[in-house]
Amino acid sequence: MEFTIRAATLEDCKDISRMILELAEYEKVSDQVKIAQRDLEQDGFSKNPFFHGIIAEVPEHLKSKEGHSKVGYSLYFYTYSSWKGRAVYMEDLYVMPEFRGKGIGKALMSKVSQLGLAAGCTQLNFTVLDWNKSSLDFYLKQGCWDVTSDLGYHCMRCEGDALEHLAQGGL
Amino acid sequence: MEFTIRAATLEDCKDISRMILELAEYEKVSDQVKIAQRDLEQDGFSKNPFFHGIIAEVPEHLKSKEGHSKVGYSLYFYTYSSWKGRAVYMEDLYVMPEFRGKGIGKALMSKVSQLGLAAGCTQLNFTVLDWNKSSLDFYLKQGCWDVTSDLGYHCMRCEGDALEHLAQGGL
Repeated sequence: MEFTIRAATLEDCKDISRMILELAEYEKVSDQVKIAQRDLEQDGFSKNPFFHGIIAEVPEHLKSKEGHSKVGYSLYFYTYSSWKGRAVYMEDLYVMPEFRGKGIGKALMSKVSQLGLAAGCTQLNFTVLDWNKSSLDFYLKQGCWDVTSDLGYHCMRCEGDALEHLAQGGL
Repeated sequence: MEFTIRAATLEDCKDISRMILELAEYEKVSDQVKIAQRDLEQDGFSKNPFFHGIIAEVPEHLKSKEGHSKVGYSLYFYTYSSWKGRAVYMEDLYVMPEFRGKGIGKALMSKVSQLGLAAGCTQLNFTVLDWNKSSLDFYLKQGCWDVTSDLGYHCMRCEGDALEHLAQGGL
């Protein structure tokens, strides 16, 4: 299928916001999405951006039933491992359902890998939900490994009142 | 105990490198550490740094048996959640064994939380190894929650040849 992968711009934030919601619906957590187009514009496209994005786009004649030509995206940012150095983290990888199975997801992930290697990164990291077997199988097939299963890493989080308390000195 | 928490500078990289190795030895993976003082200097203290650091320091008269006054550190960087927006990630939190139980770890974590909140972050994220029960208990006591246990998040990684293949288009 004909498609292009390119860097996201400010003008893509409306479509990225739409697809973030579609992805959250797929993951059954759309009530968890607290950010909108304007947050993405501020946080990704001002000085010292918190993330970068790439967009998968199809030509006009292949656009979706609803008229969308931006049909997939990935958000990523650079991180650091105190053992291995520079790393790239893929926050989201999404392709609209009717455009799946055509290599778009793999092309997006490949682009993030290229950008990471070009920046001197030795690792690509991301998370997957344990019930999402089709994604997990895809990633394992690409040679990724499961750090949680293999080494026992648990993702931990502090937010809301607990984060405020911690900033004030903790319990 | 008398100690101060302050932002790390280029001159701290030697001690940070030493403590990264000490932490890796504690986690039984010192063979995994591939970066040294010079990498830290380049990656953390040039334009567009990949991480930031804070240092815990004790006065001269309280220094360690080996003569170290820099006795703990944390490395952190800013990340992004496509649901919740700006986040801060704590890559390492370490206090030398003879200085534990004196509130230094909590003070370091509190400082990272303060810096995150000041930057508009709503989440502090980090990972813990499942066998490291004393750390896990400490974090849970501070109001953190286990995203892997509660929501099924698995950390995934691609590196080495697999990352090169993926950048070239994947399998």
